[in-house]
Amino acid sequence: MHAEQRARTRDLLKSKGIDAALFAHRTSVTWLTGFAPAPQTGVSAAAGGPPLVWYADGRFTLLVMDSHLADAAAFGQEPDGAVAAYQGFSIDTALRGGPNLAALLNQTITGASVRAGKVGVEERDLPVALWYTVRERLPERVSLAAIDGWLDPLRMVKTPEELVKLMDNFALAGIGQAAARRAARVGQREIDVWAEAHSAIQRAAGQRVPLGNDCVVGYRQNNVGGWPLDYPIREHDSLIVDLSAIRYGYWSDGCATYYGGAPTERQAAMHRTVERALELGISLVRPGAVAGEIDRTLRRFIADAGYPVYRHHTGHGIGVTGHEAPRIVPYSAEIIEQDMVLMLEPGIYFPGETSVRLEDAVLVTATGARRLTHHDKSL
Amino acid sequence: MHAEQRARTRDLLKSKGIDAALFAHRTSVTWLTGFAPAPQTGVSAAAGGPPLVWYADGRFTLLVMDSHLADAAAFGQEPDGAVAAYQGFSIDTALRGGPNLAALLNQTITGASVRAGKVGVEERDLPVALWYTVRERLPERVSLAAIDGWLDPLRMVKTPEELVKLMDNFALAGIGQAAARRAARVGQREIDVWAEAHSAIQRAAGQRVPLGNDCVVGYRQNNVGGWPLDYPIREHDSLIVDLSAIRYGYWSDGCATYYGGAPTERQAAMHRTVERALELGISLVRPGAVAGEIDRTLRRFIADAGYPVYRHHTGHGIGVTGHEAPRIVPYSAEIIEQDMVLMLEPGIYFPGETSVRLEDAVLVTATGARRLTHHDKSL
Repeated sequence: MHAEQRARTRDLLKSKGIDAALFAHRTSVTWLTGFAPAPQTGVSAAAGGPPLVWYADGRFTLLVMDSHLADAAAFGQEPDGAVAAYQGFSIDTALRGGPNLAALLNQTITGASVRAGKVGVEERDLPVALWYTVRERLPERVSLAAIDGWLDPLRMVKTPEELVKLMDNFALAGIGQAAARRAARVGQREIDVWAEAHSAIQRAAGQRVPLGNDCVVGYRQNNVGGWPLDYPIREHDSLIVDLSAIRYGYWSDGCATYYGGAPTERQAAMHRTVERALELGISLVRPGAVAGEIDRTLRRFIADAGYPVYRHHTGHGIGVTGHEAPRIVPYSAEIIEQDMVLMLEPGIYFPGETSVRLEDAVLVTATGARRLTHHDKSL
Repeated sequence: MHAEQRARTRDLLKSKGIDAALFAHRTSVTWLTGFAPAPQTGVSAAAGGPPLVWYADGRFTLLVMDSHLADAAAFGQEPDGAVAAYQGFSIDTALRGGPNLAALLNQTITGASVRAGKVGVEERDLPVALWYTVRERLPERVSLAAIDGWLDPLRMVKTPEELVKLMDNFALAGIGQAAARRAARVGQREIDVWAEAHSAIQRAAGQRVPLGNDCVVGYRQNNVGGWPLDYPIREHDSLIVDLSAIRYGYWSDGCATYYGGAPTERQAAMHRTVERALELGISLVRPGAVAGEIDRTLRRFIADAGYPVYRHHTGHGIGVTGHEAPRIVPYSAEIIEQDMVLMLEPGIYFPGETSVRLEDAVLVTATGARRLTHHDKSL
């Protein structure tokens, strides 16, 4: 489970002279271990801090609250993995998740490699209270280095295991899109369409599934994106529906545009232009392509068709976050590689009037791109 | 907006000799300012860290990412409030949320009171990367103090403004319970019931609403709680449905138990016992009552009725978190006060067989308790 991810990480840390490391970012923890706790609805008073991964002597230890132990247990079976848990909830004492996690971290920070070396820390996500523990536990001569973002480039190329998770989730988001297409009728509100899509996804998954991203009618001033509200769909309205179903700690994504009744000629022309832009984008994806060039080509295509050019990214990688490297944006010099998974999402927006966006996922193959999303984006 | 909360905080910090403070816990930020950003579906690559509140010279400054500025703006109108934003997302540069937030925090840490004094920091939630900024910005002679959990006791007594938010949300969760009661039929799965409840809540609210907590059939081994899965409801099954609708940054809560067809005699007897336990609990709530005594009385009632005693809390406060002080648990010496809002939730569980839990919210009045939840919990 995610052994390849840990092999890449081990190699990177070694090449940078890092002997041990503490990972505190939610995405690093999931990517390194496959651990994906149930979706949170808020801050748990019992939790002592984020799940952590401690790396030393080539081994990875996942630190979690006791209530997450069942979800984490599989990682403890990995040859280079271990799981340790601290007590969170109790009815017999005041909640002591914070001190309990600090104590567990203190116990965990061991190993020959940390007696004299360099220890990496994800500082942007490690709480100060836990950092004190790290600093106190390590000898003075050990130096600390910030390693925030170091895993980002390693996450770009997907493993077969990750592809399965992503493809499963793209199919799930597609079930939501089919429900949204059926529900998007005059008189229905954004939130009604959203609720239908979300229900269809959760029923199909047989479990709760957090859902992003956008569900907005064209006559909203910001018709690029936003959460669904109670705006009704009127005759000739456009409705952008951009759905990310999140499961196994992995995202999906995909966007379609639906209409209240028949689209107007103007909308149909916009829709066809965006369809062509998306196809053009997909045709440009191959190993060796430069992300910024794909971006610029699509923006030029939209401008040449006589439309205002969208202000958002042309696309992005996807994995344990919704938006990740490579970014398909104007300044990006990132090179596309085989086995990356990319989202492409050109659009045309007339604020307060109407808008259209279409989005697909592709897997980068040896010679081009294979579409991973199959929702109906037609007029 | 939340002026009373800030007055209490000002008094507390003054009494403790704290001249300035940095609040980093999500709940502190909402409670102090009323700021409640849209529900998150995951980690944003654009965010530089959590929203923060800096307190100095009697004034509170809310630090947020630019995309949250619209939601935060109202707080800037408060006489003792200000809002400052940093750039998060951009297509023109690499994402620099972290450094941008650190720079904004650096600029914000000013004021006569921090040139020589004592500064409080919520250390359990402040990322190390931002803590460096705090330490570097403050003169050596300024001492830092951990203030984690200091606001918890101040949050127990609700303001009229908070009561409105809570009561609105209890009504919303009640709409979900009514939908769940209708949906809980033989052949439907836990997730089907959940999806119906969630849809009803989101449609009624006209917006996305995160939903906790439990939806479990009695024949699951852990039938106390858990997320809904694809277990079908069979004839004579019990189904615990415990729903928290979260809006305005405030929680709600409430539990009912439904049955597949008619409940058995054993289930009916359990249900009536739990109903009586809940009524008993409510009758004990008044200013001056001791939380631990309410807890012990209800456990004794369940034991005296010949049932195994539940292992979870008897109840808890509610507000910007789902579970907060006062805790109604065996060891608690906390004294009930007027204007607290308490959840009470006795239950009876036979693992892998059947279970029942009923839960209501009450407002503590001058002489007793007034029920705030009105969902149908009858057999």
